[in-house]
Amino acid sequence: MSLLVTGSIGIDTVEAPSGKVADALGGSSVYFAYAASFFGQVRLVGVVGEDCPADFLKPVEDNANIDMGGLEVRAGSKTFRWHGKYQDDVNQRDTISVDLNVLAERGPVIPQNFRDSKYVFLANTHPGLQMELLGQCERPGLVVADTMDLWINTEKPLLAELLGRLDGIVLNDSEALLLTGRHNIVEAGLEIARLVKKFCVVKKGEHGCLLFIDGQTYPLPGWPSSNVVDPTGAGDCFAGGMMGYIAEQDDFSSQTLRKAIAYGTVVASLELEDFSLNKLAVITRADIDARLKEYRQLIEF
Amino acid sequence: MSLLVTGSIGIDTVEAPSGKVADALGGSSVYFAYAASFFGQVRLVGVVGEDCPADFLKPVEDNANIDMGGLEVRAGSKTFRWHGKYQDDVNQRDTISVDLNVLAERGPVIPQNFRDSKYVFLANTHPGLQMELLGQCERPGLVVADTMDLWINTEKPLLAELLGRLDGIVLNDSEALLLTGRHNIVEAGLEIARLVKKFCVVKKGEHGCLLFIDGQTYPLPGWPSSNVVDPTGAGDCFAGGMMGYIAEQDDFSSQTLRKAIAYGTVVASLELEDFSLNKLAVITRADIDARLKEYRQLIEF
Repeated sequence: MSLLVTGSIGIDTVEAPSGKVADALGGSSVYFAYAASFFGQVRLVGVVGEDCPADFLKPVEDNANIDMGGLEVRAGSKTFRWHGKYQDDVNQRDTISVDLNVLAERGPVIPQNFRDSKYVFLANTHPGLQMELLGQCERPGLVVADTMDLWINTEKPLLAELLGRLDGIVLNDSEALLLTGRHNIVEAGLEIARLVKKFCVVKKGEHGCLLFIDGQTYPLPGWPSSNVVDPTGAGDCFAGGMMGYIAEQDDFSSQTLRKAIAYGTVVASLELEDFSLNKLAVITRADIDARLKEYRQLIEF
Repeated sequence: MSLLVTGSIGIDTVEAPSGKVADALGGSSVYFAYAASFFGQVRLVGVVGEDCPADFLKPVEDNANIDMGGLEVRAGSKTFRWHGKYQDDVNQRDTISVDLNVLAERGPVIPQNFRDSKYVFLANTHPGLQMELLGQCERPGLVVADTMDLWINTEKPLLAELLGRLDGIVLNDSEALLLTGRHNIVEAGLEIARLVKKFCVVKKGEHGCLLFIDGQTYPLPGWPSSNVVDPTGAGDCFAGGMMGYIAEQDDFSSQTLRKAIAYGTVVASLELEDFSLNKLAVITRADIDARLKEYRQLIEF
């Protein structure tokens, strides 16, 4: 079924213990869409500036399952840029520079032919903009968003309003604690699941994730990665794998969501094995399914 | 089959957001033995001072599955005391005071009738003492130990010698990274599993654990606890549940170890729901099995 993602498109420079890439394709909507594309069609809405190199978006444009009909190339604007550096412990990241550029301007517009999307993912941005984008959708069946500490700290009332309109939210453990003021992640997740209509997923990086739905908590461990090259985009790929599977199944029962977070875990674990989209560009759905099977076997007892 | 534990017996004072207990029964061998007792007989070896109150050890002495034949009440010595305080985030703990007392003296002696134990767990203490105790055992079938950052920092050569004599080791994630100088926990665990004869278990507190055996990594998530009253002893109860199940099955195949760490997770998750042994004192094996079943269902997808 139709899946829509709104989010950033970025020019990333990433330094990690294993190497460096400069001016690589990144951004939340790009990672999400590529991850979701293994499961079916995905509609991407995002903005770049006129500085965006001609071939820069080729990996997503060449992907038959990604509909770039929501791409705006804005005249007179510049593309979002991010430069980060991972420490020897790749769980530790320093931001060297951020140039919001076009992301600091007005948001994109969802094209008419995207507005009937049944599944909608609003990647992290200002909650006001997330609501504006959501307002352009016609009766979506399942709306899920991501957020970040910045908005929790600066836009709490708006964020609360957004939460009330969402079916689900995906956020990090530190963000879940910050949002609720709690110290226990299970209490925090259960509370957030009550603030939205249906479910909350708390991501814990290498430690896996927790799904909160119907007052119940479903934990999954991380895939045991010894080969972490570049974690950039792993969280967006988690969400993309999760939403891609949900849209493919055209179902969001508790049972489907539990399998969806397993797919999210597995797609993210593949993505971080190389820089940018390099790893996802060389794998197939069969590789994802093979790792899902292995993951299931590893946690069986 | 016969299971032996050597370790501390302590008088604990614990402050936590949920309350406080003073002069409560604790210590690694006590928590381990109580956790293992749900699976069968366990032999406890440890020392207290003559200051130890008459009824202090009653919970373990009254446990029909704990053989206290290895208890030494040392004249002229004082019992180990520990006072800790958990912060609002119970993953953060401050040590208010430690009085090693009898633990700073010579170690205990393993009684003759305990020396044929097939399964041996050497709870954390000086690696030289762990080897001395191991030397008193006659051809044990499976020897597993715990250690801590202090010995990794101060007794690395001795610790390396100990590791070479062990079948398995159980340690925290931060300790595994410290021991190997690595930054990736999977690489660290795989390396440590090669330093011992058989396996390594890395405990990650609320994030679960990882079993490393035969070059393979098996992750499990933590039990999703919203009711953490006092995490003191949870690591020892993990080891006790794990070793108790191994001894009960009288098998240490990879398959049994995978189920053993699940039992360890579940017993630890019950223990931290109250201070000292209070929770374990009111549950049965059936409660543990019920939670194990629920745990398995939660992580199925």
